[in-house]
Amino acid sequence: MNKVEHIGIAVKNLESSNELFAKLLGSPSYKTEEVESEGVKTSFFKVGENKIELLEALKVDSPIAKFIEKNGEGVHHIAFDVEDIEKEIKRLKAEGFTVLNDIPKKGADNKLVVFLHPKSTNGVLIELCQEMNFKE
Amino acid sequence: MNKVEHIGIAVKNLESSNELFAKLLGSPSYKTEEVESEGVKTSFFKVGENKIELLEALKVDSPIAKFIEKNGEGVHHIAFDVEDIEKEIKRLKAEGFTVLNDIPKKGADNKLVVFLHPKSTNGVLIELCQEMNFKE
Repeated sequence: MNKVEHIGIAVKNLESSNELFAKLLGSPSYKTEEVESEGVKTSFFKVGENKIELLEALKVDSPIAKFIEKNGEGVHHIAFDVEDIEKEIKRLKAEGFTVLNDIPKKGADNKLVVFLHPKSTNGVLIELCQEMNFKE
Repeated sequence: MNKVEHIGIAVKNLESSNELFAKLLGSPSYKTEEVESEGVKTSFFKVGENKIELLEALKVDSPIAKFIEKNGEGVHHIAFDVEDIEKEIKRLKAEGFTVLNDIPKKGADNKLVVFLHPKSTNGVLIELCQEMNFKE
């Protein structure tokens, strides 16, 4: 794990939460992106070397909608930046962690992502993400 | 807000969670500290420029015990490093955020801390922290 890439926060209304977090952090969101496969609209804020990702559900059966129904708004996941996601999946499985998707999928922000089941990580939904293009 | 100083995670058993997070992050906890005033025992991990803080309740009426009773283990708070905590309190109150303690108190890791009420921050408990000694 190189660093915390971002902290994902589930919100009901991206527009009003963008305003809220701009006030909190002192600078506005720099990007908005829809991730069709996950049924979410996201926005990103930069804080130091990390990002804050706000996530609003685009449909009622998206994981974010279900999360908010169960827990209310709040921290949804912590994402760690990794160099080699396949290698990390192998390492963490060998350590006893439950990987939710064995094959990395395309997430927001040009990343390959996998999630670890929160039951194996003290209730914290962990995302691993690897930048898709090393050369930009 | 300079950066995310740490992410606080509520755990039932610090010893077993220390082992778990050492496996997850690939390096062990570098410090353990009791904060009597908060009724918690904490341990810290370094990841990039951030820390992960695990918190175990030392008594049944501590905020962490109550959090776990209600939500189970998981992310408890996000702490942001600030230069001038008094100035940030004033700024955030003027922006409409609810500050839980107007006077900063001594937290773990040699910090002055205040918390913002999660009702004013999309369900996320936000801590502001300022290093107590600028010169070390």
